[in-house]
Amino acid sequence: MNILEMCDWEAAAVPLEATVEQAIRTMLDRQVGAVAVIDENRRVAGVFTERDLLRLSLGEHELRKIPVRQVMTAPVEMATRATTAGEALATMVERHYRHLPIVDDNGQLLGMLSIRNLLQARIDTLTHQLDQVRLVVR
Amino acid sequence: MNILEMCDWEAAAVPLEATVEQAIRTMLDRQVGAVAVIDENRRVAGVFTERDLLRLSLGEHELRKIPVRQVMTAPVEMATRATTAGEALATMVERHYRHLPIVDDNGQLLGMLSIRNLLQARIDTLTHQLDQVRLVVR
Repeated sequence: MNILEMCDWEAAAVPLEATVEQAIRTMLDRQVGAVAVIDENRRVAGVFTERDLLRLSLGEHELRKIPVRQVMTAPVEMATRATTAGEALATMVERHYRHLPIVDDNGQLLGMLSIRNLLQARIDTLTHQLDQVRLVVR
Repeated sequence: MNILEMCDWEAAAVPLEATVEQAIRTMLDRQVGAVAVIDENRRVAGVFTERDLLRLSLGEHELRKIPVRQVMTAPVEMATRATTAGEALATMVERHYRHLPIVDDNGQLLGMLSIRNLLQARIDTLTHQLDQVRLVVR
């Protein structure tokens, strides 16, 4: 299974022109902890996450109306179809990221990989392997 | 391994009198997505999470100074030492929780279990089982 198959069916995303409020509404609606921020060609310009909001909410500004592009994490680490699950997990653990956008050669958004997707996929693989080996033992 | 052994060494917590700002600072310092809100006897009164902050930040109020007890999730689902990993995972998936406080008979905080702790522990168990079975096959 490649990392794209581990993602939720459609990545949560907002346009570059979105406000923080729109990003937050998207995260609540989709029950996710991060949205990709994309330009008019669906190229990933950055990511806005729950952790960005934590930092932001300690400031003085009126949070909701801020353009998300001003406060998103950018540049952002990304993965491609060629990135293995192991490589993606290593990047996320090392950088303390919980999400990694997957992009094509043009930088266009293909999916949003979460560390939970990766752990769940690893469990599925191990469970399958264990079933196979046990069949042999029987 | 019981669920308490899966938790981080010390649960992040703030007193009932804390402000939202103190809760957020604790989450940032400890790099966690949730804090337990505890009374003077370390009894869990509620939980404040990144998702609570998402909802809260859509409002008009000056976020940082709000008492956390006004906006925490309470009453909150809890686990005990007797809760199995399977039961804890079922609760979290069903209720869309990513965190579950573990408490003793007096309701005092013992640990904070995250869905990531549970998935990681499941991977460790499966990996160990696979190693054992493969030893037998050889």
